[in-house]
Amino acid sequence: MSKEKKIKIKRPKAEAPKGFRDYFGSDIRARNLLLQQIMEVYHLYGFEALETSAIETVEALGKFLPDIERPNEGVFAWQEDEGWLALRYDLTAPLARVYAENQNHLPSPYRRYSMGPVWRNEKPGPGRFRQFYQCDADTVGASNVLADAEMCTMLSDTLEATGISRGDYIIKVNNRKILNGVLEKIGIFDGTELEKFSNQRGIVLRAIDKLDRLGIGGVKELLGKGRKDSSGDYTDGANLSTDQVDLMLMFLEANSKTNMKTLSNLSELVAGSKIGEQGVRELEKISESTDKQGYGIDRIKIDPSVVRGLGYYTGPVLEAELTFETIDEKGKIRRFGSVAGGGRYDDLVKRFTGQEVPATGVSIGVDRLLAALRSKSKLAETTQGPVIITVMDRDRIDDYQLMAAELRNAGVRSEVYFGNPKNFGNQLKYADNRHSPLAIIEGGDEREKGVVLLKDLYLGSKLASQMLTNDEWKSQPAQISINRENLVTKVIELLSRYKQ
Amino acid sequence: MSKEKKIKIKRPKAEAPKGFRDYFGSDIRARNLLLQQIMEVYHLYGFEALETSAIETVEALGKFLPDIERPNEGVFAWQEDEGWLALRYDLTAPLARVYAENQNHLPSPYRRYSMGPVWRNEKPGPGRFRQFYQCDADTVGASNVLADAEMCTMLSDTLEATGISRGDYIIKVNNRKILNGVLEKIGIFDGTELEKFSNQRGIVLRAIDKLDRLGIGGVKELLGKGRKDSSGDYTDGANLSTDQVDLMLMFLEANSKTNMKTLSNLSELVAGSKIGEQGVRELEKISESTDKQGYGIDRIKIDPSVVRGLGYYTGPVLEAELTFETIDEKGKIRRFGSVAGGGRYDDLVKRFTGQEVPATGVSIGVDRLLAALRSKSKLAETTQGPVIITVMDRDRIDDYQLMAAELRNAGVRSEVYFGNPKNFGNQLKYADNRHSPLAIIEGGDEREKGVVLLKDLYLGSKLASQMLTNDEWKSQPAQISINRENLVTKVIELLSRYKQ
Repeated sequence: MSKEKKIKIKRPKAEAPKGFRDYFGSDIRARNLLLQQIMEVYHLYGFEALETSAIETVEALGKFLPDIERPNEGVFAWQEDEGWLALRYDLTAPLARVYAENQNHLPSPYRRYSMGPVWRNEKPGPGRFRQFYQCDADTVGASNVLADAEMCTMLSDTLEATGISRGDYIIKVNNRKILNGVLEKIGIFDGTELEKFSNQRGIVLRAIDKLDRLGIGGVKELLGKGRKDSSGDYTDGANLSTDQVDLMLMFLEANSKTNMKTLSNLSELVAGSKIGEQGVRELEKISESTDKQGYGIDRIKIDPSVVRGLGYYTGPVLEAELTFETIDEKGKIRRFGSVAGGGRYDDLVKRFTGQEVPATGVSIGVDRLLAALRSKSKLAETTQGPVIITVMDRDRIDDYQLMAAELRNAGVRSEVYFGNPKNFGNQLKYADNRHSPLAIIEGGDEREKGVVLLKDLYLGSKLASQMLTNDEWKSQPAQISINRENLVTKVIELLSRYKQ
Repeated sequence: MSKEKKIKIKRPKAEAPKGFRDYFGSDIRARNLLLQQIMEVYHLYGFEALETSAIETVEALGKFLPDIERPNEGVFAWQEDEGWLALRYDLTAPLARVYAENQNHLPSPYRRYSMGPVWRNEKPGPGRFRQFYQCDADTVGASNVLADAEMCTMLSDTLEATGISRGDYIIKVNNRKILNGVLEKIGIFDGTELEKFSNQRGIVLRAIDKLDRLGIGGVKELLGKGRKDSSGDYTDGANLSTDQVDLMLMFLEANSKTNMKTLSNLSELVAGSKIGEQGVRELEKISESTDKQGYGIDRIKIDPSVVRGLGYYTGPVLEAELTFETIDEKGKIRRFGSVAGGGRYDDLVKRFTGQEVPATGVSIGVDRLLAALRSKSKLAETTQGPVIITVMDRDRIDDYQLMAAELRNAGVRSEVYFGNPKNFGNQLKYADNRHSPLAIIEGGDEREKGVVLLKDLYLGSKLASQMLTNDEWKSQPAQISINRENLVTKVIELLSRYKQ
C-alpha cells in the first residue's frame, strides 16, 4: 500500500496543441457577425451555401498524394482502414471534389460560397496558426471573364458591408495571361513548353510577389543576379539580362492614373504575344463591365504587380488591399495590406473528370479583416456582460431567479450569481470579470422596504476594485434604490446609458 | 511515346470519405438560423461563447490515452513529432481543458456555450455520420443544483425560441443519486466501493436506458436472468433477485401526475440511503425553483426513467423529448424522441488539476432538432433562388449586369446567367434548378420598345419544363411586359407573391 501511495499521478497538460488557439466571448460574436455580413452579400449575388466535411480522402485533396510513407507534409493526414484521410487545407479543393461528384444535378454555372476553418500542418509562429477561417465564393462552369468582373464588384460590396469605407480599400486586378505574354516576349515562356524555364519563371514570380516589401530596387536585383538582404543572406536571382529585366520592370510600372491608360501600356508591352494580347482584352472587358456598373478606379484598379503567389491561377487575378494606416499599441504605423484575393483557375475539376471546367473565385481572410475592423473601431463592441443579480440571502435565491426571469423576458441579458455567495466581494469581482454593466442587490433591509438597489458597475468600477465593505459600497453615488415592481423598467433605463 | 499513351491515368475518386456528407444551400441557412436562435437564448441567460480548436492532444482529450500502438478507437487520432493529436469527439472534454488552463482569469462560475462539429471514428451507417454538430451550454464551478434547474428552464426557453410549441416537448429530470440510492437499497452500491458490482450496475443502467424501446417487460427480463430478442439473440441479464427487480421497477414506475407526488414516491423508495435522500432533496430544490418561475409539469417533469447512458454524470440528469408525432413520407408514424440532454458531472476538470470542480451542462442535437422542425414545417422555407436575368443578346451582357446591380441595390437577390447563352432552354433549365421565382428577358425587340419581360417561373414552371420555343414561351400568361425603368418596383411587386 505504501508503495502505491508513492506513485505520482501523471496529469495531462491543460493546453491546446502548438499553433492552435481558443476564442472567447466577444471575439466569437464579432466574427459571427462579420461572417453573417459577408454571407448576406454573397447570397444577394445569387451564390448558394455549401458546407463540406472537414475530412477528405488524401486522394481527393490532391497535391499531397501518399507517395511517401506518411503524406502529411503541409496537411494533417492519417491512415484508416479505408485509406489515408486528411483535414482540408482550403475550401477550393473540396469544392472541386463536390462539383465533380454532383456535376449532373448541380446548376451550371454553379455559384457557391463556403466558410469555415481550414488546417495547415505548418510550423506555428507568432501570429501564424495551424487552424484559421476562410470565407470563399466561387463560380464554377463560367468561362466568361464577366464572372471575374463580378468577383471584383462583389468583393467591393462585401468589404463595404462589413464597415470598410470607400477609399479605405482598393481591389487590384491583373491577368496571369499578360504576365505570361511578357515572359513570352523576354523568351522564357512559349505557352506549351511549360517545364522549360519553369525554375526561372518561379524566381520571377516570387520576385514580383515581393514588390510590396522590397520595392522596385529589390525586385530588380532578384530579376538579375540576386540579392543580399540586411541579415547578409543571399537569394539567387533569375539571371535575366538587362533588356529582359527592363521589360519586366516596365510591366510592373505600367500602372497609370486611369485603367484605360494602364491597359494601353500593357497592350504595347505584350504586342505580338497571342496570350498576352488575349489577357489585355480580358482585362478590358472586366474594366468596361465594372465601370458601367459605377465601380470606378477608386474601387477597382488594374495593377500589373498583382500575381497572387505561385498558385493555380490561369487568368484574371485579384487582390483586395486595405489602404488606411493605423497606429498600433506601440505607436507604430501599421498597414493591413491584403485581406482577400482570388482569380481564375481552370484545372481543378479536371483532376477528377478529365474535363476542363472553368472556374473563378475569391477568398477573404477573416481573421485579418477582423483585426482591421477592430483597429478602425468599426466593430460593434460586444463585450458588455450580463446584469448580475447578487445573492445577499442564500435562502431567497428563488426570488433572485424570478428577477432574472423577468429581466430576460424583457430581453435583458441577466443571471443570478451561482458561486458561493458567502463573500460578497467575490460576487463583485465576478461581475467585474464579466464586464457587467449593472448589479442588482436585495438584502433583508431592502426586502422589508420593498426596494432593490441598482449598482452601475461601469460608473462605480474604480471604487469596486478597492474591495470596500458592503456598507461602504452601498453608499456610492453610482447606486440607486428603486421599488421592486419597477425593476425591469429601471434596469432598461439605466442600461440605455450603455446601449450598444 | 506509344507506350506512354497506353498508361491509363488514375483519377482520384470524387467522393467524401465514408460517413461524411456535404450540406447544400437552404439546409445550411436553416441550420445557421437555428444555431443563431439557440445562441441568443444562451447569451440572454448570461452564457459566454467559447470556440476551441478542432484538434486537441490525445492526452488532454483523455479517455483515449495512447496505451495501445494507435489510440484511435472512437476518435480520429494521428501522431505528429510533438505527440498524438486527435479531433475532438465532443465539446465537453475541450471545455474541461480550457477551464483547467485558464482557471485563474476565467470568471467563476464560468458559464459558456459552444457550438460546432465533433468527430467520431465509428462505423458509419444509415443516418449515422462521423461528423455532426453539437450545441452545448455548461456552468462550471457552481455546486448549487439551481444551476441544474437553470439548464432545464433555459432548455425549455430555447426549444420554444426555435419554434417547438409548448406541449410539443417535455423536459424530464432525474438524479443519478436517487438511482444510486435504489442500487444501495438492493445491495449493489455502497457509495465507496465503486468497483464492486460495477459490471452488474452497468447491466442495470443499460437495461433502464432501453425502457423506451423494450417497455417495462423487456427491462424486467434484463434485470433478471436475461432476454432473447426477436432475432433470437440472447442478452445476459443483471441476475437480480425477484425482490431486487421489484424495487427497481417500483423506482422506474414512481412517475406520477404531479412532481410532488413523484418526489414523495421516490423519497419512500430510498428512505435510509443517504445518497438517495440527498438526491431527492436536490430534485425537490430543482422542482421548487422551476415551479416558482412558472415552468409547470407541462414543461419540466421529474421522471425516474431518465439515466442518460453510462456517461460521467454524478447528479441531476435531464433530457428533452419531443412528444408530437408526424407521418413520414412512407406514411409511418414517427416520433423524434430525445433532442437534447445533459446533467451534472463533477470530475472532468479534476483530471488536469486534481481539484474537483462542479459542473453541469446541456447539449442539443442540432441535426435531429432540425429534422423535427422540418417535419412540423416550422422552418422558414429558404429554398427560393435568385432572380435570373437571362442573356438574349450576348453583346449586351453589361446592360444585364446593370439590371442585376439595380435589383441588388434594392435588396433583391439576383444574377445574370453566366453559362453559354446560345441555348435559351439551358437558361430556363438553370433557373429551374436554382428554384428562381422570376426570370427577366430583354431581347432586341424589347430593347427597341424600351420594355423588359418578367416571367413568373413558379406559375409557369410546368410549361417551362415542356421545352417550348422562345416565342411560345414568351406568350404564356405567367409573363408580363413592363417598362424598363419600372424594373425594380415591378420585380419587388411580383416577388411579394412569394414573400418568405
